[in-house]
Amino acid sequence: MLSIIILGTGTVAKHLAGALDKAEGVQLTQVVGRNQNQLQWFSNLASTSTNFLEIEEADVYLIAVKDDAIVDVSKYLVEKKGIVAHVSGATPMDYLPMENRAVFYPMQSFTEGRPLNFKTIPFCIEANWEASAKTLKIVASRLSDNVYDIDSQQRKKLHLAAMYVNNFSNYLYGVGEKLCLEDGIPFDLLKPLILETAQKIQVMSPKEAQTGPARRGDEKTMQAHLNLLHDEKQIEIYTLFSEAIKKVYEEKL
Amino acid sequence: MLSIIILGTGTVAKHLAGALDKAEGVQLTQVVGRNQNQLQWFSNLASTSTNFLEIEEADVYLIAVKDDAIVDVSKYLVEKKGIVAHVSGATPMDYLPMENRAVFYPMQSFTEGRPLNFKTIPFCIEANWEASAKTLKIVASRLSDNVYDIDSQQRKKLHLAAMYVNNFSNYLYGVGEKLCLEDGIPFDLLKPLILETAQKIQVMSPKEAQTGPARRGDEKTMQAHLNLLHDEKQIEIYTLFSEAIKKVYEEKL
Repeated sequence: MLSIIILGTGTVAKHLAGALDKAEGVQLTQVVGRNQNQLQWFSNLASTSTNFLEIEEADVYLIAVKDDAIVDVSKYLVEKKGIVAHVSGATPMDYLPMENRAVFYPMQSFTEGRPLNFKTIPFCIEANWEASAKTLKIVASRLSDNVYDIDSQQRKKLHLAAMYVNNFSNYLYGVGEKLCLEDGIPFDLLKPLILETAQKIQVMSPKEAQTGPARRGDEKTMQAHLNLLHDEKQIEIYTLFSEAIKKVYEEKL
Repeated sequence: MLSIIILGTGTVAKHLAGALDKAEGVQLTQVVGRNQNQLQWFSNLASTSTNFLEIEEADVYLIAVKDDAIVDVSKYLVEKKGIVAHVSGATPMDYLPMENRAVFYPMQSFTEGRPLNFKTIPFCIEANWEASAKTLKIVASRLSDNVYDIDSQQRKKLHLAAMYVNNFSNYLYGVGEKLCLEDGIPFDLLKPLILETAQKIQVMSPKEAQTGPARRGDEKTMQAHLNLLHDEKQIEIYTLFSEAIKKVYEEKL
């Protein structure tokens, strides 16, 4: 049985604690965080403390705090023998000062109170010591079927790639919503399309899955679309993406 | 029992024929199209013909051909008494020359051979005659739980909104894939995130669902991301979206 302590009480900490609680072969023994209110959420799952000087002994310490607090929290763990891993996509492993340092990064967007199927979440593991990588992979495999070796450089890139597929796609959903509401169309009409677009990509490459006037080189439809737009940002996005998509398929010819 | 004839043998025609075949209270009686090979696909579902002069009588004719062929095909239907509807998002209803004209537009991206749950597909109905709108809504409600009155102006706007949430999001998935592959990261790592982003929007507004450094105004992370990028289009997209997202949340303050 591997014992695990979580540092932090935010959204990722909650998701991890909930998943660890249900997993076999691992035991969440303590959660430490400054925020007394948030700590209460964890009180059924493990012992809790607001005092970082009272961190217990464990096999694995997971630092699940805001990126700019990781180094500060890690200072309370330098004397520990267990593996100290942060769970951040954007932070290099070597920001951690101890020898037995590591990263335990779940590649997903966590929303407070919104349950996720952990089995499908890719866990990205990196460790300074080989034995620690092995231990963290055992922990990750108790939570998920998808465990990967990903080094700090790759993780940085992955985190950047996530901006495009998550943050920027979500912004496009917002543009779609705005265009609908302008003409009294419920945003609900776009939702099945949004879902299908994301589901299709699970089994097809983005290049195969691409449809629409820019792929076909259908200038007439693109011009008609531009004529409907008034907002400068929307026009800029339309033009930029149409040019970019056209280029992909021209190269192919 | 409403009798229905489909004109056209492409992807949308196939999806509609398959769904009509399973639906109650409607009967697909004939499929007419020039392409003999494609027509064979329909031969178990209805009678077929390559001759547009042999179109039978029916309650509803669904023109499911490429947008620029709709008007040509409609000419073979001017003498018919039934409702003549095209299934296109981008084509105004009034392109059809007959009085009993209409639109029967399923708002979804159809892929050859990829099954869809029709029950969730929004059907957009427009008709020149009120009685015909009523009939088409009966047909649509046999296929789907989501049936809407959408006029030509709205449909044009909806089709434009679909560019953003489908075509442009898919292009972003391609950028994500490219960034991953550059550093030997399997694209699979992004897939659960892509799905969660689309699933989240089913129950939250895009504005609520937005995450990431641009929303937080985290300039440090944004600069670090830009430093990782080399491709001009990727930089342009990153900058454009970050500015646009920042603007949404600055307005909120």
